[in-house]
Amino acid sequence: MAARRQRLRHGLLGRRRRVGATVTTWNPWSLRELITDLAAGRTTPAEALERSRSRIADTDPVLRAWVEHLPEPALAEGPLRGVPLAVKDIIDLAGAPTRCGSALRADAPAATADAAIVRAWRAAGATPIGKTVTTEFAFFSPGPTRNPAAPEHTPGGSSSGSAAAVASGQVPLALGSQTAGSVTRPAAFCGIASLVLGHGRFPTDGVVGLAPSLDSHGVFTASADDLALAWSALTGTPEPPPNRAPRLLRWNASALGVDDAMSAALEKTCANLTDRGAVVTAFPEDQLIAELTEAHPVVMAYEAARERAEELAAADRLSDHLATLLRTGAAITDAEHDEARRVVVEADRRLARLTESCDAVIGPAAQGPAPRGLDATGNPVMSRAWQALGLPTAVVTGLRDERGLPLGIQLIGHHDGETALLATARGVEGA
Amino acid sequence: MAARRQRLRHGLLGRRRRVGATVTTWNPWSLRELITDLAAGRTTPAEALERSRSRIADTDPVLRAWVEHLPEPALAEGPLRGVPLAVKDIIDLAGAPTRCGSALRADAPAATADAAIVRAWRAAGATPIGKTVTTEFAFFSPGPTRNPAAPEHTPGGSSSGSAAAVASGQVPLALGSQTAGSVTRPAAFCGIASLVLGHGRFPTDGVVGLAPSLDSHGVFTASADDLALAWSALTGTPEPPPNRAPRLLRWNASALGVDDAMSAALEKTCANLTDRGAVVTAFPEDQLIAELTEAHPVVMAYEAARERAEELAAADRLSDHLATLLRTGAAITDAEHDEARRVVVEADRRLARLTESCDAVIGPAAQGPAPRGLDATGNPVMSRAWQALGLPTAVVTGLRDERGLPLGIQLIGHHDGETALLATARGVEGA
Repeated sequence: MAARRQRLRHGLLGRRRRVGATVTTWNPWSLRELITDLAAGRTTPAEALERSRSRIADTDPVLRAWVEHLPEPALAEGPLRGVPLAVKDIIDLAGAPTRCGSALRADAPAATADAAIVRAWRAAGATPIGKTVTTEFAFFSPGPTRNPAAPEHTPGGSSSGSAAAVASGQVPLALGSQTAGSVTRPAAFCGIASLVLGHGRFPTDGVVGLAPSLDSHGVFTASADDLALAWSALTGTPEPPPNRAPRLLRWNASALGVDDAMSAALEKTCANLTDRGAVVTAFPEDQLIAELTEAHPVVMAYEAARERAEELAAADRLSDHLATLLRTGAAITDAEHDEARRVVVEADRRLARLTESCDAVIGPAAQGPAPRGLDATGNPVMSRAWQALGLPTAVVTGLRDERGLPLGIQLIGHHDGETALLATARGVEGA
Repeated sequence: MAARRQRLRHGLLGRRRRVGATVTTWNPWSLRELITDLAAGRTTPAEALERSRSRIADTDPVLRAWVEHLPEPALAEGPLRGVPLAVKDIIDLAGAPTRCGSALRADAPAATADAAIVRAWRAAGATPIGKTVTTEFAFFSPGPTRNPAAPEHTPGGSSSGSAAAVASGQVPLALGSQTAGSVTRPAAFCGIASLVLGHGRFPTDGVVGLAPSLDSHGVFTASADDLALAWSALTGTPEPPPNRAPRLLRWNASALGVDDAMSAALEKTCANLTDRGAVVTAFPEDQLIAELTEAHPVVMAYEAARERAEELAAADRLSDHLATLLRTGAAITDAEHDEARRVVVEADRRLARLTESCDAVIGPAAQGPAPRGLDATGNPVMSRAWQALGLPTAVVTGLRDERGLPLGIQLIGHHDGETALLATARGVEGA
């Protein structure tokens, strides 16, 4: 009975519903607090797993973030001390099938080995406990996951389940991937922090990709502070200390359709940062972003048609949206793809010059808060340009619109600059 | 008071809700009954307009089928005796803006002239009374319209409002257009009849098109019987009498993902037809359909990028889905488009040989009933092949799945064979 009460207190009955609003509060689970408690012996890895299991049992009938649970997760050892980890279901996890949110893989057998990125997190001390909902092959057709911050709203996608699992406190750490805006958007919509690793950081073996020149790894935590800790553990490097007065280029992204609440949130964040000594100047070249935003879908469609050729051959069992992407992508010629890649390479050079004397670009992580409804996952347009370049990006959260829906701020770093980016993210988080 | 009671009786309070199901019944409005009443002097065109207005006032706060009402519709004269007509909001109607479901056209001025197809229906005696919801530029991003047969389900798209307006009895006649499955799918989902005119039938002047070689006109009514009447009025030809024992090629479309309820509905319809003397044989060449289904999106994306070049230049104000279509379409070369068109031309010859001794192909109009949710409009895959060929197609309704959701049967005719197709549709409707 005591255990049952305990579960209820932390579970569904424990959520606070704001009167007259659709917003519910599910507290995320701080990775740093958990690691501190584990280090101090106030809890054990087995208890952390049990807490995760109990939280999932309480909340997942509503949230639908998970597709598979490992019956007996093997406790990992390493700096993360065995904390529970969620794995997006396009990433192989030994002992569980990789179904990719697709009817085509409904009967997939259990993977026999971990993906390289899972091995890396396991070596860092994270314990994979199961697989989370992805949109169909990490494109747009959504799974059943609800947004923990507003259950009638999309959690975003494609890493829908991983974002919801962290936002609802089911796990303190979850893996995603991003080809367009599949990590940044769900982090922003669910009100949590995320890091998209630079393109090429860690191999993609064992990940069912969509567009090899665009696919990047991602990770979700409750806060940028937690991201810094996770990154340190993953890479065996010291934690980046907060950069409280960064030099930032402010990208308003107004040409990409930002709503008023998001504009105000960016404005306020930049004002607070400036008050604290940050130097914020305007991002000078919207044309560069426009060119990249245009080139990105061409590269993505071209590569997806070739990377997922097997699925293209069975397109009758795909959503019309994905089938259309693959079919139109197959009709894009090598020459057109080369031209789009050339735009990207040229833009990369120009951006490097623009940003060389700043710590990061700061801008909206999404056009606004999560749209209402579960049948679409929102617009990734705020990520296309940066993802075309393969830059590391982070989402910092903490702001809400007048309805209480989360708004995410995006930070874009330099190539190979994850550590410095996370230092900036920690600094911005405080603002 | 009497008028108010009358409105309530025919309005929201008059709907019958099936206990324990999501299905509501909104009776559509028979065009033939109305014309008969008008001819007999039992009602007047002005009363018909008032009935439409009243029905819209009662039901549209829930259904959201309309975007604009003409304040004083000019009563048309002709064989249709002034019956009220709904016009999809990509088709110009003098006195109303053409907004195309897009923020890009939110401030569009009122059109100064009718589209050619509106002039044709006006000459046939239909009175346009306003504009109905379309998805964004007749592609996939939905408007707010609910399915009258099941308000939590999509009405389909892109002609969402016109289908819902007929299914709910707001009007007896509504105009749509189809580039992929934008008439056939909403008719099937809402449980009404539709005709997609052969490509090139009536000019498309005044219609904001998507892909010129694919865009066709469409019309919705309560039944195939009404379609025959409407077609006769539009073309000034005698009404096609029911063909009760047609020769049909049965296309199961199983390679395109048909659900069990739809398969059973097709099975039952064919069995009933056979009992009544029809000759039903199997459609022999699924490969032909596969090739066309694959070529269609290539043609559509290529042409849409060029047809909507102005919108492509302002893609930041489009949905990501449409922006991606236009951007990938712009990267498809002339040579690839030519190749896809070549597939279509060749398939057209092969199909003509296959179908020369039959009245129509019969198959599913959609993969199944309307999917739940209003944020996506379902899959047009059952129409892509036929639309690539520009053939006239009709939807016959009357069947429901075990939840009471409508299921539509599709009939595909010969080039220039609308009249014969509607004769077959009337015959199939009885079965």
